[in-house]
Amino acid sequence: MSNKQNISLENSFSESLKKVDFEIFNRLDKTLPLLAKIGSHLIKAKGKRIRPILTLAMAAQLNDFSKKPILLATAVEFIHTATLLHDDVVDDSDFRRGVKTANKVWGNEASVLAGDFLFAQAFDLMVETNSLEALSSLAKASCKITQGEFMQMQISNKPNTKIEDYYEVIGGKTAQLFGSACESGVIVANGSKDQIKAAHTYGFNIGLAFQIIDDVIDYTMEKSISGKNIGDDFKLGKTTLPIILVWNKSNKKEKDFWMRTINMLDQNENDFEFANNIMRKYKIIEECKNIANEFIKISLSSLNLFPENKYKYPLINLAHESLIRTK
Amino acid sequence: MSNKQNISLENSFSESLKKVDFEIFNRLDKTLPLLAKIGSHLIKAKGKRIRPILTLAMAAQLNDFSKKPILLATAVEFIHTATLLHDDVVDDSDFRRGVKTANKVWGNEASVLAGDFLFAQAFDLMVETNSLEALSSLAKASCKITQGEFMQMQISNKPNTKIEDYYEVIGGKTAQLFGSACESGVIVANGSKDQIKAAHTYGFNIGLAFQIIDDVIDYTMEKSISGKNIGDDFKLGKTTLPIILVWNKSNKKEKDFWMRTINMLDQNENDFEFANNIMRKYKIIEECKNIANEFIKISLSSLNLFPENKYKYPLINLAHESLIRTK
Repeated sequence: MSNKQNISLENSFSESLKKVDFEIFNRLDKTLPLLAKIGSHLIKAKGKRIRPILTLAMAAQLNDFSKKPILLATAVEFIHTATLLHDDVVDDSDFRRGVKTANKVWGNEASVLAGDFLFAQAFDLMVETNSLEALSSLAKASCKITQGEFMQMQISNKPNTKIEDYYEVIGGKTAQLFGSACESGVIVANGSKDQIKAAHTYGFNIGLAFQIIDDVIDYTMEKSISGKNIGDDFKLGKTTLPIILVWNKSNKKEKDFWMRTINMLDQNENDFEFANNIMRKYKIIEECKNIANEFIKISLSSLNLFPENKYKYPLINLAHESLIRTK
Repeated sequence: MSNKQNISLENSFSESLKKVDFEIFNRLDKTLPLLAKIGSHLIKAKGKRIRPILTLAMAAQLNDFSKKPILLATAVEFIHTATLLHDDVVDDSDFRRGVKTANKVWGNEASVLAGDFLFAQAFDLMVETNSLEALSSLAKASCKITQGEFMQMQISNKPNTKIEDYYEVIGGKTAQLFGSACESGVIVANGSKDQIKAAHTYGFNIGLAFQIIDDVIDYTMEKSISGKNIGDDFKLGKTTLPIILVWNKSNKKEKDFWMRTINMLDQNENDFEFANNIMRKYKIIEECKNIANEFIKISLSSLNLFPENKYKYPLINLAHESLIRTK
């Protein structure tokens, strides 16, 4: 593999990402100490910034390196961060990416308000791109995120959930923002209708794969490189893909086990190990990875609608990498 | 006073308000039972709809009765409702307008998510008006609402708060949305720059007066017609205008009383009555009403920039009415 092919998206956009960081700092209200602190807390604990990078990369594919994709990428990161802040309140989480969550440091009140502030700022940023179409894409994605999270509440602790309902949940809560991050980048770069659609397909399917691999990590019994605590989903009885697939294959005795641990949250010390044994017995992790791989294939084929350029390889790499986070 | 002058804004716009109600119902996701229930719960407990009426009235002054003001008015009501849902989580409230709050019925999680959904839907609705300028106004107002609420957290339980800080809080958390509701109505109706500014001035100052009167109601010792429970602000130690004004006039012994009750929340059975006695001694309620009246005067004078029309009287009436809610 040549160097060109090895390049990561993050390295390709390190300069643009600095501009995004600058915008993030710039838009946080420094006159309110609490908001400034929450902001820098989040920036310190920053994740991989996949979503804003996707916006930048999609615009770059169409030679747009203007301020518009920078503003959009910042808006995308703000929307994502707002949902994290509110998620942590909803889930009552203690840690995210190994760092104490904002709600545990400053309380639920401040986290709810900080999320609202970032969300409102995101729309204010989008106005500056002058593109109602890009704004509409991200407004619709924001609706779908909350719809997905609502539905997630409804399927929680239900191992006998239909797989279609699961896809609707992760499509909403995770994949739509990936899709819209890509789509909006192409919109401001004046891509064709087909390219806009293809960008959404690329992001949406990466998002699905990304969430499935995130679900899988919880049952790998290895120390995660993602900052996620192994076994957390199990402890909370989350209805993730491994649970749904293993439920469908389980015998009567195993189903009783899942109902006790996931549905009734009546868990003993050795239950997580036992859960992993059942997962291994039915090769559930492999099955999940195969499913994620199918989504990645759809992502990759959608890139055909874009001209050959140096940003294509990192986009291809990102698709492949999202599968190997568990290794 | 002629009939024409007696007409209320609510009566003038009953038909348009039905269209707003239709949009509200239309935009709630019926596939998610929880969201649909929260939506109808809120509609059942509906308030006076002052904010959406202001949007409709301002557009009507410039002869715009199209769908655009309807969509904007719906967006304004969604933003307002989203902030109420989140406020109730932040304040841990039990009742609003005499009805159990959504967070007490369905939990904080659902209230946080429902607020997020309404907020995202608001921006999606605004996209349909095709006006980036109106959208920008409401995005900026949304930022300022959360900034005002953040600041409110910082001044809470501090009777020795500076009056300027109080105005910044209520300017953000209440008056900006009133201002933007008016301003955006004039924007979509193609008003002049001066009219847009005047509309904001009208709404912003009504909002300030509205909040001050809301603060006053808590200390009127009469059964409120607003659905608000008398004495609630006192119990929570909220830093409202009556508290700030009475603090400035209080003697040493009285200041000790305010520090004990408002700052340390160490309250006895007769404290609220005693608080009211001090308020009466210094004529604090009258002073608050005089201040509110000054803001109303600014509101009224800003209407001079609009042509004479039948919607002017109800706008004038609304300004006056906002002062007499305590009677």
